[in-house]
Amino acid sequence: MTFSVTILGSSSALPTSNRFPTAHLFNSNERFFLIDCGEGTQIQLRRFRLKFSKINHIFISHLHGDHYFGLFGLISSFSLLGRKSDLHIYAHTGLEKMIECQFKENTINYNIVFHKISPQKVAVLYEDKTLKISTFPLKHRIPANGFLFKERERELNLRKDVISKFNLSIKDIQAIKKGSDYLWEDEKLIKNNHLTYPPDQSRSYAFCSDTAYYQEVVGFIKNVDLLYHEATFAEDMKEMAKKTTHSTAKQAAEIASKANVGKLLIGHFSSRYKDEKLIENEAKEVFENTETVIEGKTYSVDIKRKA
Amino acid sequence: MTFSVTILGSSSALPTSNRFPTAHLFNSNERFFLIDCGEGTQIQLRRFRLKFSKINHIFISHLHGDHYFGLFGLISSFSLLGRKSDLHIYAHTGLEKMIECQFKENTINYNIVFHKISPQKVAVLYEDKTLKISTFPLKHRIPANGFLFKERERELNLRKDVISKFNLSIKDIQAIKKGSDYLWEDEKLIKNNHLTYPPDQSRSYAFCSDTAYYQEVVGFIKNVDLLYHEATFAEDMKEMAKKTTHSTAKQAAEIASKANVGKLLIGHFSSRYKDEKLIENEAKEVFENTETVIEGKTYSVDIKRKA
Repeated sequence: MTFSVTILGSSSALPTSNRFPTAHLFNSNERFFLIDCGEGTQIQLRRFRLKFSKINHIFISHLHGDHYFGLFGLISSFSLLGRKSDLHIYAHTGLEKMIECQFKENTINYNIVFHKISPQKVAVLYEDKTLKISTFPLKHRIPANGFLFKERERELNLRKDVISKFNLSIKDIQAIKKGSDYLWEDEKLIKNNHLTYPPDQSRSYAFCSDTAYYQEVVGFIKNVDLLYHEATFAEDMKEMAKKTTHSTAKQAAEIASKANVGKLLIGHFSSRYKDEKLIENEAKEVFENTETVIEGKTYSVDIKRKA
Repeated sequence: MTFSVTILGSSSALPTSNRFPTAHLFNSNERFFLIDCGEGTQIQLRRFRLKFSKINHIFISHLHGDHYFGLFGLISSFSLLGRKSDLHIYAHTGLEKMIECQFKENTINYNIVFHKISPQKVAVLYEDKTLKISTFPLKHRIPANGFLFKERERELNLRKDVISKFNLSIKDIQAIKKGSDYLWEDEKLIKNNHLTYPPDQSRSYAFCSDTAYYQEVVGFIKNVDLLYHEATFAEDMKEMAKKTTHSTAKQAAEIASKANVGKLLIGHFSSRYKDEKLIENEAKEVFENTETVIEGKTYSVDIKRKA
């Protein structure tokens, strides 16, 4: 059961020779969700040999070009590759028109379903049997939202041997995994805790970009296993960060620390920084388990057994 | 006096892992002109260490996304890099609106001047002291135009030693280079052909993409030194080429041969071809001096002395 994010782009508004604009590919058990789609996202997908066809949902954090200019090319390529299934795009008002505007001459063969993100609101955007994706507000010059990817509560794990020992049917197993006790041979009630052990903990990933230091975020991302938080500037540019509604690496680490996250990933670095070690070190002073994202690298959260 | 084109992108509509969508950077004596601007053009400019700031004119052949989706990111980066000078964009009707549509939230600090290309017309788009850029129609599903970059007729070259021998002033030199004879010490008329030798030949580059095989193009590009012509398909896909209004490599070579060009560059290959040697060989059978473009490579036309 994979639960991971692959970094496709990690620059701030001005890309550099080794960083593309923002795009993350989230993988939940081989279902893929694209978060932001900066220019060149389709190029990075090819470069890292990731499958286009498995992407059915795209989440756009806000309508600054470095977070969505790659959508047009990707939408067009999906069509050329013969896509038939719906593509779901979650974004603030305005993107739909921008896309329509580009595809008057460039026709596409499938349906795009737009889902409006309301700024300043926490909302569930997507749910299935195992995953829930919700959104929460960030603090930026224009409406901007973060995303939380969280596995649903899992069922109890069946202990080894109980199937053969009690000759369980599929129906019995389903009931036991949901917490039922079991009446054995119509006479002995076996308590559920003799048949199962606790379910694996549900895993979570939160994406926060672009945003100024925003204390309220802590409540939305409490205890996530993996947090990506923008860190456009080092501490010497704290005033600039405030002015442009971005964060410093230290501020990202403060959010990570207050939210008690497992691991912090930082990116969206200003192109002025040639070596990101300085930025990473400033974050690590506040939150040790911090990593500067590398494009093409996949960051996984392992399955965790409950104590 | 540089006269060259650097290939930034050379795929057809669907980029591949080693080919970006169409973009050429034409260099006339260190003035740069961008021809088409597929997604990732700004990434390629950085990769090949080419200067953004020297680009003031962009020519868009037609409004299929693989020829202009990179404009939004480039326009945005120009602004972030502090551009103040006007940017001239030459394109068919429609692009202006598409750009406006993207830059409601993403403000830019400089002025964009749009120049409308009229389909089906030959027209001069740009002229300065040394260069003339004109456009001519191609044959595609939507209005599409080619571009011809041609040096102006040059002045006569002054023979070595004549300046000191006849003690020429700057005014004398200017007149002689334009063809005047010279009256030496108020008594002896020195004929111009004793003072000069013929001017260098003016050089030319033509860009033809996207287009079906279109005989009329021959008249527009006669005798150019360097021709780029699309070659989306090999000969086995001739019917597909016709249907999609693209060319085969052989057809590109036939145009090159009929127009008596110096050298043919081919590109815009369908992503179905993993090895372009087949395509190149088919073209070479008709026109030997053919080369498959390589991204990052610069193709120059040397100064040619007149016989």
